[in-house]
Amino acid sequence: MTETEGYVGRSLALLQKYPVKIGDLISITTRQGVYEGTLMTRYGYADDHHIVIKLRSGYNVGISIDRITDISRVAEAAGPKYVTPPNRPAPTDLPKVTIISTGGTIASRVDYRTGGVRPALSVEELCASVPELTAIADIDSEVLFSLYSENMASDQWSALALKVAEKVNNGSKGVVVTHGTDTLGYTAAALSFALKGCPVPVVLVGSQRSSDRPSSDAATNLIAATVTAANAVFSGIFVAMHHDLSDDTISIHRGTKVRKNHTSRRDAFESVNSPCVAFVKNGDITVVSKDIPHRREGVTLMPQPKFEKKTALLKFHPDFDPEIIDHLVSRGIRGIVLEGTGLGQVASRCNGAIKRAIDGGVLIAMTSQCIWGRVRMTVYDTGRDLLSIGVIPLGDMLPETAFVKMMWVLGNTKSSNDSIRLMTENLAGEYMSRRPLTRRKNAA
Amino acid sequence: MTETEGYVGRSLALLQKYPVKIGDLISITTRQGVYEGTLMTRYGYADDHHIVIKLRSGYNVGISIDRITDISRVAEAAGPKYVTPPNRPAPTDLPKVTIISTGGTIASRVDYRTGGVRPALSVEELCASVPELTAIADIDSEVLFSLYSENMASDQWSALALKVAEKVNNGSKGVVVTHGTDTLGYTAAALSFALKGCPVPVVLVGSQRSSDRPSSDAATNLIAATVTAANAVFSGIFVAMHHDLSDDTISIHRGTKVRKNHTSRRDAFESVNSPCVAFVKNGDITVVSKDIPHRREGVTLMPQPKFEKKTALLKFHPDFDPEIIDHLVSRGIRGIVLEGTGLGQVASRCNGAIKRAIDGGVLIAMTSQCIWGRVRMTVYDTGRDLLSIGVIPLGDMLPETAFVKMMWVLGNTKSSNDSIRLMTENLAGEYMSRRPLTRRKNAA
Repeated sequence: MTETEGYVGRSLALLQKYPVKIGDLISITTRQGVYEGTLMTRYGYADDHHIVIKLRSGYNVGISIDRITDISRVAEAAGPKYVTPPNRPAPTDLPKVTIISTGGTIASRVDYRTGGVRPALSVEELCASVPELTAIADIDSEVLFSLYSENMASDQWSALALKVAEKVNNGSKGVVVTHGTDTLGYTAAALSFALKGCPVPVVLVGSQRSSDRPSSDAATNLIAATVTAANAVFSGIFVAMHHDLSDDTISIHRGTKVRKNHTSRRDAFESVNSPCVAFVKNGDITVVSKDIPHRREGVTLMPQPKFEKKTALLKFHPDFDPEIIDHLVSRGIRGIVLEGTGLGQVASRCNGAIKRAIDGGVLIAMTSQCIWGRVRMTVYDTGRDLLSIGVIPLGDMLPETAFVKMMWVLGNTKSSNDSIRLMTENLAGEYMSRRPLTRRKNAA
Repeated sequence: MTETEGYVGRSLALLQKYPVKIGDLISITTRQGVYEGTLMTRYGYADDHHIVIKLRSGYNVGISIDRITDISRVAEAAGPKYVTPPNRPAPTDLPKVTIISTGGTIASRVDYRTGGVRPALSVEELCASVPELTAIADIDSEVLFSLYSENMASDQWSALALKVAEKVNNGSKGVVVTHGTDTLGYTAAALSFALKGCPVPVVLVGSQRSSDRPSSDAATNLIAATVTAANAVFSGIFVAMHHDLSDDTISIHRGTKVRKNHTSRRDAFESVNSPCVAFVKNGDITVVSKDIPHRREGVTLMPQPKFEKKTALLKFHPDFDPEIIDHLVSRGIRGIVLEGTGLGQVASRCNGAIKRAIDGGVLIAMTSQCIWGRVRMTVYDTGRDLLSIGVIPLGDMLPETAFVKMMWVLGNTKSSNDSIRLMTENLAGEYMSRRPLTRRKNAA
């Protein structure tokens, strides 16, 4: 065995007796039967007496070395293959669309050596994998980051906003941003504020399955995002992801109203307290929302890419210790978004710490951990107490969007009054007017 | 004016000229027309130049005192009326059910003096308002607390668990707990662990509308909860709330899998990553889940009511400051449930603080802020890093249930190994085996 990643002790010793390496298709003979699969890496917490292979079914099995009588190689490790599209002049009548890659599953592939997923696919590789893209738009592309999305934060949002603005101001008719799904909603909100008034569509897109897997949603999502960036009549910041479990319909969500509501389903993203903006099916865009700004090409986009890092999102829970608020204040926090219960409540014993923070100039706003619905703090006297202390109620704004907005507001205002005013103004569709009781059904 | 709550300065002076008091139905004449409605209280942040009345439509309007030419009383303030049920001997063939009141909207009424909602209705008043209850069961009742549910915490959970156990051990065939909806899910989880193995059904029930309002869901919810407590063939801790916007179907949710997913809808409560246990319609219980323990009357219930308060639920977000973890450790925290992104991720720069905490003996477990789906930390190397540090992955457990379970586990174990083992064991239906991709649709 030439590569030994993760195997230690007895399992390593056994593997080294055979001409196999990580990623090879191997056959393991045991006293109970023969197993065939890809030899997988093991990780730091692994024991030393199992060999792990991935069966054709996709499941990993660990086989005790005490049961193993023979190991042989069936086929050598092979990575995914990419086809480079033929060189051809870009059709001059196609709109110019920029694809900016930041990482995530959509720009990743299964690493056959480790069995894990790595952010590794370049935009060129994406276009090679999805040749349809070159028929939709004159694609310009740039790899800005190669990050797991849980590591994306405000520094990246700022750099991304500047890059998008540069591309828009240089003539891109739309921009696609490939992004890991975990914090895609946060980044979509961040661009919605930093690129307020964006004259063309900017479409963030991710994938819940690696783009080289048969069940991947990467290609359909990417095609829909590119169609939207190239052709949509509307402008602003959006997210394109599978609408449901069918293969063909992609939802276009408003960047400030979208949330990842499932860890793994392809239709994990949903518009909350808001309808989708549009659907894309077979390359056609059907607009379903009437209040989206029109595309206004030729208008210069002035980015406002500053975000205040000294901002926190705190979820209230029973036995929540309000000292955490005092501690954040002592560390120089400038704003806190609370995720209260129901209509916007926290236990009354938190009021002292909240009041001290507000009196010290900290911006404190209220959202609901219910996710759906809207904060209404005038119904109960406890809510009214919080209002009179100075807590800002944020209506139907998502907690995550509220947190990003507060970072942006604090980064772009000088006075507390301006901050409070901006928090309560509808800047980028983050507030929706009260709607009837119909709601898109989702998740369970 | 004899009662002046909230009115100050000029508006107070004007009101004092007329024989009206808060809660009266009054008529206000202005140069533009006449308004009739209930005189409402004003609150701390009110100005001094509006009089606020609640119109018959239910909306409040503020009328500028500069426009007012006359005020008169149409009818005196009147509170809601309750009819005491006729004294009759309890039918001896009805099962004995205890209703324990803790407060919340279901045990509240609109205070016509303030326009707000107050937890004020006793269980006797509830029974008087919902006489159907006395035909379902031989009702025994007790007011344990009168609290807004955001003020319910582990001290109340412990007292409630002891009270329920006392009632069960004294022969109640089922127990109904009325509770504010905001933290009802947390309390349901708490009882699920503290009353593990409960031999009869304990049904928590709330209401999204005050019980004296025409659109209230209080009566139907309470009737369904009482039917379930009296007659269900299954046992354990459950939540009874409206299934949808129809008037007649109530869902019975497992206490560890239920979440308030809307701030105000009657069907705000949903089973997450799990089907409902049963539906109640027109007094009939339809069981839909097969893996619920049977009712086992006569078995003694041994409560385990201890909860460790030094436990926190932390929601990860971009730019999350890991110092908060070090700070909690310095304050003696014993367990932290993280709400990570996606499959259970946090930014890699948090790993140091997490490792320091775990090395110091703090229990750290991972859930997902997606709400739906399940944590799977072996897919990405970042997740595997967290696993090797010792973070406990909690599968499809709700973050709120995970937090309550950790409080309970830390309150009832001596060693770290026992705590880790209990966190990963399925004690009260908090873990569900992987299910097909169907899910009940909800919320938007």
